[in-house]
Amino acid sequence: MKNSGLLLVISGPAGAGKGTVVSKLVKDENIRLSISATTRAPRGKEENGREYYFYGREQFEKMISENGFIEYAQYLENYYGTPKRPVEEWRKEGKDVILEIEVQGCEKVKNSVPDCISIFIMPPSMEILEKRLRGRGTETEENIQKRMKRAKEELALAKNYDYVVVNDTLEDCVENVKAIITAEKLSSQRLSFDI
Amino acid sequence: MKNSGLLLVISGPAGAGKGTVVSKLVKDENIRLSISATTRAPRGKEENGREYYFYGREQFEKMISENGFIEYAQYLENYYGTPKRPVEEWRKEGKDVILEIEVQGCEKVKNSVPDCISIFIMPPSMEILEKRLRGRGTETEENIQKRMKRAKEELALAKNYDYVVVNDTLEDCVENVKAIITAEKLSSQRLSFDI
Repeated sequence: MKNSGLLLVISGPAGAGKGTVVSKLVKDENIRLSISATTRAPRGKEENGREYYFYGREQFEKMISENGFIEYAQYLENYYGTPKRPVEEWRKEGKDVILEIEVQGCEKVKNSVPDCISIFIMPPSMEILEKRLRGRGTETEENIQKRMKRAKEELALAKNYDYVVVNDTLEDCVENVKAIITAEKLSSQRLSFDI
Repeated sequence: MKNSGLLLVISGPAGAGKGTVVSKLVKDENIRLSISATTRAPRGKEENGREYYFYGREQFEKMISENGFIEYAQYLENYYGTPKRPVEEWRKEGKDVILEIEVQGCEKVKNSVPDCISIFIMPPSMEILEKRLRGRGTETEENIQKRMKRAKEELALAKNYDYVVVNDTLEDCVENVKAIITAEKLSSQRLSFDI
């Protein structure tokens, strides 16, 4: 029963800790992190193919016209998108691929890859979310208020995801996502029988 | 987020090892095994409320008329059925309830309890299934052939289940069923949000 890997879409409000959860997950050699493409210029030590694939505008638009993205969006005059090919190749090799994406982008991925699994990483409470944002020590009061407002809007969309995992302790949260991966692979819809 | 427990329907051909898997699962204090009711007489050391609830024929038929069974069937002039009440009460307490049932009964449970989770326990191969049946040392050749034929028919129905778990090693199989339980509880359809 050789099956292709899963596409996991992971979202959650800033401060829910999805970045840390994802970084734990990709330590598993069967899990890959999808890398986005962008037309914006590299910053600091960013490397092509590590933080992003850096594309020229023409190149990006050509790929759009060739249906080469799982999803893409324009933000502040730059394009951002998820190239289809690496995701498809990894999945064919049996690797699970994680797509860390804004809540707004999840619907697009679902339309483009109907068998994707969407997971919403939820903070244990709004109080803890606020504490975590303040704990970063890098955000202005205005920014914290903005992020809290946005988090509330995003939480209302959690029910559109297949799964909702509360990030109370990191270990439990990672274990829960792994249980979802295990269970999804046992779903009769994904199995090919040859008994 | 207090949620009610799951109803797990577990089936599989004789020799797939579902009995052993279930006996491991119910060691978890949050998992209960549903006990069937029957009109047949107790055998040997069978006790009322342990192996079966032993009902009189009238009592059983009264419960049928009151819609008191999740499913029931007649077999060799006796009734067998799953009483609704204990299952509902356990689930309300947050316990997960396992219903070990014949492949033929699964559809009835799904109609009666649409949010049940059905799991088919699959032998690793027909060869291993046959070896296991012979290993019991209690079956006649004729019986083994009968069971193998029936197993083939039942395996064809595995795809009607929500999940298919291969019982290769017992530990992995139990872990996989537990992952399914964990994942199902994280399904956004089961969650009640109060953030």
